Amino acid sequence: MARDVSPPRGMRDFLPAEKAKRERALRIIREAYSAHGFDEIETPVVEDFDRLHSGLGGDNEKLGFSVLKRGLTHGDLSAAAASGDAHALADLGLRFDLTVPLARFYASHRAELPTVFRAIQIAPVWRAERPQKGRYRQFVQCDIDIIGEASQLAEVELISATAFTLAALGLTGCTIRVNDRRILTGILHYCGFAKERFAQALISIDKLDKIGAPGVVAELAEFGADSAAVLGGLLKRIQPQLAGGGVPLTTPGILSVLPDGIDPDAVAALETLANALTGLPEGVEVRFDPTLVRGMGYYTGTIFEIAHPASGSSIGGGGRYDGMIGRFLGQDVPAAGFSIGFERIVDLITVDETAIGESIVLVHDIDVALTTLIALKNEFIARGVRVRLEKRVKNVTPLLERARIAGFDSFAFVSAEASDAQSLLVKPLA
Amino acid sequence: MARDVSPPRGMRDFLPAEKAKRERALRIIREAYSAHGFDEIETPVVEDFDRLHSGLGGDNEKLGFSVLKRGLTHGDLSAAAASGDAHALADLGLRFDLTVPLARFYASHRAELPTVFRAIQIAPVWRAERPQKGRYRQFVQCDIDIIGEASQLAEVELISATAFTLAALGLTGCTIRVNDRRILTGILHYCGFAKERFAQALISIDKLDKIGAPGVVAELAEFGADSAAVLGGLLKRIQPQLAGGGVPLTTPGILSVLPDGIDPDAVAALETLANALTGLPEGVEVRFDPTLVRGMGYYTGTIFEIAHPASGSSIGGGGRYDGMIGRFLGQDVPAAGFSIGFERIVDLITVDETAIGESIVLVHDIDVALTTLIALKNEFIARGVRVRLEKRVKNVTPLLERARIAGFDSFAFVSAEASDAQSLLVKPLA
Repeated sequence: MARDVSPPRGMRDFLPAEKAKRERALRIIREAYSAHGFDEIETPVVEDFDRLHSGLGGDNEKLGFSVLKRGLTHGDLSAAAASGDAHALADLGLRFDLTVPLARFYASHRAELPTVFRAIQIAPVWRAERPQKGRYRQFVQCDIDIIGEASQLAEVELISATAFTLAALGLTGCTIRVNDRRILTGILHYCGFAKERFAQALISIDKLDKIGAPGVVAELAEFGADSAAVLGGLLKRIQPQLAGGGVPLTTPGILSVLPDGIDPDAVAALETLANALTGLPEGVEVRFDPTLVRGMGYYTGTIFEIAHPASGSSIGGGGRYDGMIGRFLGQDVPAAGFSIGFERIVDLITVDETAIGESIVLVHDIDVALTTLIALKNEFIARGVRVRLEKRVKNVTPLLERARIAGFDSFAFVSAEASDAQSLLVKPLA
Repeated sequence: MARDVSPPRGMRDFLPAEKAKRERALRIIREAYSAHGFDEIETPVVEDFDRLHSGLGGDNEKLGFSVLKRGLTHGDLSAAAASGDAHALADLGLRFDLTVPLARFYASHRAELPTVFRAIQIAPVWRAERPQKGRYRQFVQCDIDIIGEASQLAEVELISATAFTLAALGLTGCTIRVNDRRILTGILHYCGFAKERFAQALISIDKLDKIGAPGVVAELAEFGADSAAVLGGLLKRIQPQLAGGGVPLTTPGILSVLPDGIDPDAVAALETLANALTGLPEGVEVRFDPTLVRGMGYYTGTIFEIAHPASGSSIGGGGRYDGMIGRFLGQDVPAAGFSIGFERIVDLITVDETAIGESIVLVHDIDVALTTLIALKNEFIARGVRVRLEKRVKNVTPLLERARIAGFDSFAFVSAEASDAQSLLVKPLA
């Protein structure tokens, strides 16, 4: 039965060193979010198929892995063959994000949760994307969400908690770019685009980094050459000010880059952020970028995205999505969330993954009694020392080097003659 | 779109208090296993369908959730309808245990792992069982395995690490029952059963607790009335000595309960365990039970199972499975493992789930400036204090009580007049 033993396409195994690094990073994230008043929850990795495909997941819905119904009959299969619809055979799917499950969770448990609920979700999600460097089919997301808070306090707490978490991870040089969906629609309105073209127009503006202002104008010309030209003029005027990820949020007069007629609530929201987001940790800056879009259609107000010079794409993002929870609950509830992309971040940081504390490798001769070995091992463990047993081989250098890399800080040889803790010669591994 | 908002059938959401308890328990388990020299690894939650259904998973293979291939054509569906085989439509499946993925992982990464590899796997598995009290379709397993160690050192390290982990969880009153597959086959041989009936016979003996010796004898009579009668006599003789989960392993002459002709290697293995497993923590006892079977067919030597008086079924188990890794690797490799059932254990223990450390609830008037609030919050966080903001309501008693239950240890009212940290009156929550 020797056969291909790789993990499934686009997915990864984690060996001890990488797994230890990941677990340490997750612990730092958990503790930082928790200090900021968020509480962790968990939902099953699968959700009902219909719920995952109800339109809240945007393009991600198409990337979902679906779970086959159990006990399918010949009739079920024939019906699917007749209709050509494989989805009739699935009743569950692996979640493709943590937002749809959160909305379902909140609707289910609202009565047991505080009025303003601050949730942490740290968990894997699955997307059947074409595998490529840095993009995986199973990956971990770290989301914080605040449900039930209509004021900008939610955005301020989310951005602040995220900034401190990035700092706790030692990730300096981050820029949190913010914008507001209402500013984007205000701009489109100002340019004269028809409302039913807004979604299309946002998709084009989202490509600004890649295709530039002329590319955006060319794409949007079919919705109105005049409107596209106005937008082009506006972009030309404001783009030079956006170097470095946007205008510093605290710059006085920041909003002067905008045309007239923007929703005053959106303007006020940005001013509130500018005033409240002081005292952020070193190495994290918040900037306003009126061309920031964020892909998901469900955002309704403030949106944000984390940029880092070492990463070509964003390493996190989020925003206000006031309409979504209501779709599960049948009643409007304000909500906002911020997600960090764990896979991208874990590659950017150095955590002290080998700091396993006091630890020893006991390199034992083959003739040492098992009883003696285990008693010795337990004696060290009782003193708080991590122990690994290794059989003595002719050349111990590679063995000791491997232990050192794994974080062990000392070693000792154990022979049948000298096998009690007192008679061991413990040496540092360095 | 108001609709059913429950988690999928047989699966659970975890609210903050329960999630915090689980995470604390998992951390205790991780740290205890790690102190004993084991290293954590991770594999994807899905494995190739064919690998999951290659016969190593026993009955669990039938309980697997299967993942639909992406991009199925009309032709694929018609072919499945014609053959009546829904599995042709699946290329992946959710893992139903952690042993099949471990075998695949080891075969894939052997060159990068130590000669004797001690693995920790703490992760969810999925089985489409009929949901019932205490049995879920998604549940967490905590496995340790030692690959590459042929001697009883593996069993001794596994049992010892597990005993200390149970103790670290505060779970007293545990009995680890041990036996050896070779003792069971020796008994069946002694009774005169044909070798090809052994698997069936073990299934019957496994039901001893439920159907009693007469029930076992009745079931096995069809394979030979004489053999069944001999087994009945043997069971009658040894069962009274097995009260309390078996004979204490350290009792001299423990093996006198066995008939003649048992494999001397199995006898020696048990004696080694008896000698080496001294110094186990209080509250964990190891006992020998020659009627212990363990369900999985892949065990080849020592087997073990954890019993606890508050649990009707076992809360963990494992054993030696020397043949399995070889099936993936095309080369024999000795292996043994011990799994604890996290879901059962987490219900039996009390962890100090509310010990979140220094923490404060800031109950603020609605007119306190957001900037002030967030500065105040960050000031406490900088001092290492966990902070939750709550809007002041008329009756604050339920709000404070909920915070106390969530583990917060102090509170303060924040008004627009007295809103700097110095002027706050911080009171204990008790």
